[in-house]
Amino acid sequence: MIPYRIIQRKRDGEELRAGEIAEFFRGYADGRLPDYQMAAFLMAVYFRGLSPAERAELVETMLRSGAVVDLSDLPGTKVDKHSTGGVGDKASLVLAPLVASLGVPVPMMSGRGLGHTGGTLDKLESIPGFRTDLTLSEFRRQLERLGCALIGQTDEIAPLDRRLYALRDVTGTVESIPLIAASIMSKKLAEGIDALILDVKRGSGAFLPELDRALELARTMIGIGDAYGKEVVALVTAMDRPLGYAVGNALEMEEAILTLRGEGPEDLRELTLALAGEMLALGGVAGSPGEGRAMAAAALDDGRALERMREIVEAQGGNPAVLDDPAILPQAPVRRVVEAARSGTVVEVEARSIGHAAVELGAGRRALGTAIDPAVGFHITVKPGDIVEAGEAVATVYARTPEDAERGREALVAAIRIGEGPAAPLPLVSHRVTRAGVEAWEGDAAEGGRGA
Amino acid sequence: MIPYRIIQRKRDGEELRAGEIAEFFRGYADGRLPDYQMAAFLMAVYFRGLSPAERAELVETMLRSGAVVDLSDLPGTKVDKHSTGGVGDKASLVLAPLVASLGVPVPMMSGRGLGHTGGTLDKLESIPGFRTDLTLSEFRRQLERLGCALIGQTDEIAPLDRRLYALRDVTGTVESIPLIAASIMSKKLAEGIDALILDVKRGSGAFLPELDRALELARTMIGIGDAYGKEVVALVTAMDRPLGYAVGNALEMEEAILTLRGEGPEDLRELTLALAGEMLALGGVAGSPGEGRAMAAAALDDGRALERMREIVEAQGGNPAVLDDPAILPQAPVRRVVEAARSGTVVEVEARSIGHAAVELGAGRRALGTAIDPAVGFHITVKPGDIVEAGEAVATVYARTPEDAERGREALVAAIRIGEGPAAPLPLVSHRVTRAGVEAWEGDAAEGGRGA
Repeated sequence: MIPYRIIQRKRDGEELRAGEIAEFFRGYADGRLPDYQMAAFLMAVYFRGLSPAERAELVETMLRSGAVVDLSDLPGTKVDKHSTGGVGDKASLVLAPLVASLGVPVPMMSGRGLGHTGGTLDKLESIPGFRTDLTLSEFRRQLERLGCALIGQTDEIAPLDRRLYALRDVTGTVESIPLIAASIMSKKLAEGIDALILDVKRGSGAFLPELDRALELARTMIGIGDAYGKEVVALVTAMDRPLGYAVGNALEMEEAILTLRGEGPEDLRELTLALAGEMLALGGVAGSPGEGRAMAAAALDDGRALERMREIVEAQGGNPAVLDDPAILPQAPVRRVVEAARSGTVVEVEARSIGHAAVELGAGRRALGTAIDPAVGFHITVKPGDIVEAGEAVATVYARTPEDAERGREALVAAIRIGEGPAAPLPLVSHRVTRAGVEAWEGDAAEGGRGA
Repeated sequence: MIPYRIIQRKRDGEELRAGEIAEFFRGYADGRLPDYQMAAFLMAVYFRGLSPAERAELVETMLRSGAVVDLSDLPGTKVDKHSTGGVGDKASLVLAPLVASLGVPVPMMSGRGLGHTGGTLDKLESIPGFRTDLTLSEFRRQLERLGCALIGQTDEIAPLDRRLYALRDVTGTVESIPLIAASIMSKKLAEGIDALILDVKRGSGAFLPELDRALELARTMIGIGDAYGKEVVALVTAMDRPLGYAVGNALEMEEAILTLRGEGPEDLRELTLALAGEMLALGGVAGSPGEGRAMAAAALDDGRALERMREIVEAQGGNPAVLDDPAILPQAPVRRVVEAARSGTVVEVEARSIGHAAVELGAGRRALGTAIDPAVGFHITVKPGDIVEAGEAVATVYARTPEDAERGREALVAAIRIGEGPAAPLPLVSHRVTRAGVEAWEGDAAEGGRGA
């Protein structure tokens, strides 16, 4: 194989021959192929895509670059969840203990914050003592005992994906559907799941804002799962505004705890129940997603999910008192209330710029490997469509310094647009995608009513 | 500047703002920006192109990355020639002493072989002792004394271009018109020329085989020259078959010497005269290209060009006896005659595969920095349209080993296609491109008849 010829042929739109993708990427994995040739290839893939055969070869190569966990000896249908990433998206923190408390094992390997979006690992680590770096054997034992473990992608899992992801992040090659799909699915297939629910975001705060691209990504991932005999269902959900109120690691952890206690924001609860319903159906515990949703609502309301989270936190070295007293979480020294500059309708709460502003405060990383500040972020209590009065508090900035707080305030004033006329937010969940195709999401109305 | 945002915006087809290209490329020049980000950017440019403003900024950045030679104190209009590269193209070796012998200074900085094409420097260095690494002050003194110096791109000239070129070569990003044009023109503008003749190749052996792409490249380079007040004229010429008979460094040097003595192949002589006519007109020595062509033909036929080459070879440390006895050049130990397998018409002498086969023999480089074998190559005495008899000698392979010779023979048998029906070779020179536009090339018929 001559690497520059492979790059040229992909650039020119040729389909590569069987084995060529595998050889090219294995060469990168073992250090024979340099970053710059891979970067050029990835940009060519951005423009030319991958054929189904090429994509399958890439998934297999990434999957086989590390260990493939075998959980088949553990009882139950193992179901994980993946979100394509958003601002304020802490659903996994509620969902994992909730679904596990109902008997479906959730072997969850999560990521860190990326670009303008937060990461489940960073949020979990805001709990004092919480360890996300379990070994694979600790992971397996906890999964057996509690039905859930919340860890990071270990070094053993798809190491090639990790290196490729870091390269894509700095070379403008993230937003490629086949590369995104292969990255997600290779990790998920390596962690030993039987089925997967995908939360595919759309709207301005999503990596792929347009609906047609979100649907294409969903279909691509479902196709990959199918090739490995894993059932994958995707919900297309709104990321034109943040999910819930909180943006920032400890703030989001606190909001997840409130939601586990039945006191969280409506949209976060609703999305979590929709995803839980699907996972319980995939796991064979519920006869339908609607039945699963009702079961999940009950487990949130009667405290079973909260108790399971307490056990998980304790098992992973965190202070379980946080479930009763979220003030144990790191607190920002400077708080600044943001007031509505005028009366009117909240027309937009623009997710992407809020995500970027949170990174500026220190809630995310500007460069790989840098530390984050768990305490900082935003609490935005208005949603598109809300009516506000001039001077009314619409948000709070949590910051390290007064200067940061002022910058954060300015960013929120720009992002929370107040005007006349109606707001047109995207529906929280709009589509459900399965092997059978795309259907409009009927929501709780069709699936058995709002729980509790 | 955030590099990955610049890459993304180019990828998405946005025009970059004034200063952004300069900052991005200067970052690469001084080592702050890594190869992998540049590789991704170059691939995005391959797909999205550069606007005229972006291209101008790139040329200026590359030009200013090193020294800009000022030859304005030397008398005469300095005219150089550049070929976009081909197989068997040794025209520069004849052209430079020829034009200099008629009073137009030729400050020629040439390159090495690249991919399947040969390089003037490698050919010159087949002369025992010949130095192409003159310092800029030696270059200037020789130019003053002999009107011509034949050197390589020194470290001082457009160092950024050299690094970019090496990166493009291994990342499949060579075949981009704005990148090719900026690379060529930044080097030529840095060497202190007043005017430039371009030999833009087309056909299977050219980097850009299609006519429309060759014309676009010509127009782009003429536009860049115009912005710097340099007159640039381009001839579009045939590279569907090798130029002349010889392919390989010493073999081509020998053929250039024969042509300087009036004994070379017809096509090499004709192309050289066409280019010389343009250069003499650009240099103000001839009133028109046709008049220049006639002057050049006379200088070839009466030995003036040969004598000037003798002085140049001697001045640059080479053995001038080579002009009388080309057998002084390195000789390959194994020679193998290639015979026509059947009778018929030579339909094709496919340049690109012949170029690749010459690299395989050792005439070119498979990787940067490796040594070449000056003695090896091909001598192909048939041209498309020739009638041959089965068993007739059509070529000779010059090789290091019998095995190499056999592989070379097989490559030539495949590349020299003998069949029925007429051959349809491209015209040797088909178009002439100037600031005023593109015109069909009228050739010597319209320009004053064949010299001598």
